[in-house]
Amino acid sequence: MKAQDYPPAVQELIAQLKRMPGTGSRGAERLALWFLQQGRNEARNLSVALLHAADSIGTCPSCGFFSVRGEQCIACSDPTRDSSQICVVEQPTDVLPIERCGSFRGLYHCLGGKISPLDGIMPEDLSLASLRERVAAHPGCELILAVGSDVEGEATALYLAELFARADCRITRLAQGMPAGAGLGQADAITLMRALQGRHSIS
Amino acid sequence: MKAQDYPPAVQELIAQLKRMPGTGSRGAERLALWFLQQGRNEARNLSVALLHAADSIGTCPSCGFFSVRGEQCIACSDPTRDSSQICVVEQPTDVLPIERCGSFRGLYHCLGGKISPLDGIMPEDLSLASLRERVAAHPGCELILAVGSDVEGEATALYLAELFARADCRITRLAQGMPAGAGLGQADAITLMRALQGRHSIS
Repeated sequence: MKAQDYPPAVQELIAQLKRMPGTGSRGAERLALWFLQQGRNEARNLSVALLHAADSIGTCPSCGFFSVRGEQCIACSDPTRDSSQICVVEQPTDVLPIERCGSFRGLYHCLGGKISPLDGIMPEDLSLASLRERVAAHPGCELILAVGSDVEGEATALYLAELFARADCRITRLAQGMPAGAGLGQADAITLMRALQGRHSIS
Repeated sequence: MKAQDYPPAVQELIAQLKRMPGTGSRGAERLALWFLQQGRNEARNLSVALLHAADSIGTCPSCGFFSVRGEQCIACSDPTRDSSQICVVEQPTDVLPIERCGSFRGLYHCLGGKISPLDGIMPEDLSLASLRERVAAHPGCELILAVGSDVEGEATALYLAELFARADCRITRLAQGMPAGAGLGQADAITLMRALQGRHSIS
């Protein structure tokens, strides 16, 4: 029995499940059969949850992070957070690892991507106008560039540094160096080079 | 930001995704955020596919395998298949590996489980009445007991062998022995014992 032997409804379910990241053909098939075996309620519950989340969750009008549609996100609506620090990330999902490390109490700004001419993503595709407004509204704030350390991330950081060079804000970039718990043997050449460049005195 | 910081709609979506086999808390969270990031269409498509499959797919009235609701399954409705061989499996999903091995052209019968008093599954919970009817309708047929080789599978096989002892059918059981491509070092004691018991002359 091959995939094309399944009834069309099952084929379509497998195709949709396969679109999820980390789910291959066999995994999608297993999931689809699991849903069929569980009965209608299981499928209905996930279906409702998907629709409800997709309909009710949007992006925060201030920073672009996930929020209840039309409302500010959990960071922007929290008056105890430091609005003089704006951590600039590529994607809304990048907010979570920073929140989890527990050492940042400022606000965020999600660019919606990184400059990547090869993928057709130019500066005008990023949410820079709203970032400019936020910087203007918080003179003296700190822009922490927490974009990736890949080529596109570096290009985006350089672009932002130039864009805000004359604005009334301090621009910082995440440190680069050895990841925690790693031996020298595991570090690649560029990481080691940056760790050396960023060395600091401890005595 | 912890799980309880997510809007309720996202928490519910994570909870539903986590119910899928092989999906843990982090995996479910990643999937939920991926759906939010993809926009409404992605969630809607999977949602529709889930509902459609759950509503339109049922079990074959003859053998219990998946089929379009109210219709016979792909095996039972295929006139080229050998109706004198009925392969008895525990679950509808057990049909697929047998179909894929490509060496069986008979029909199936899905019991819907295996006898397991500890889990409260007794013979009357299995679809035995319909199996009896099928055997009566095909005198001289072969019942191939393709239930698992665990304790409950063995108990189920013994029970079926006894149940059909006086029926006009031949009862066979899948061979047990060394799995293909395995060395003696990987085989457990029971597997080796059964491989020895089932040894056959090759000269």
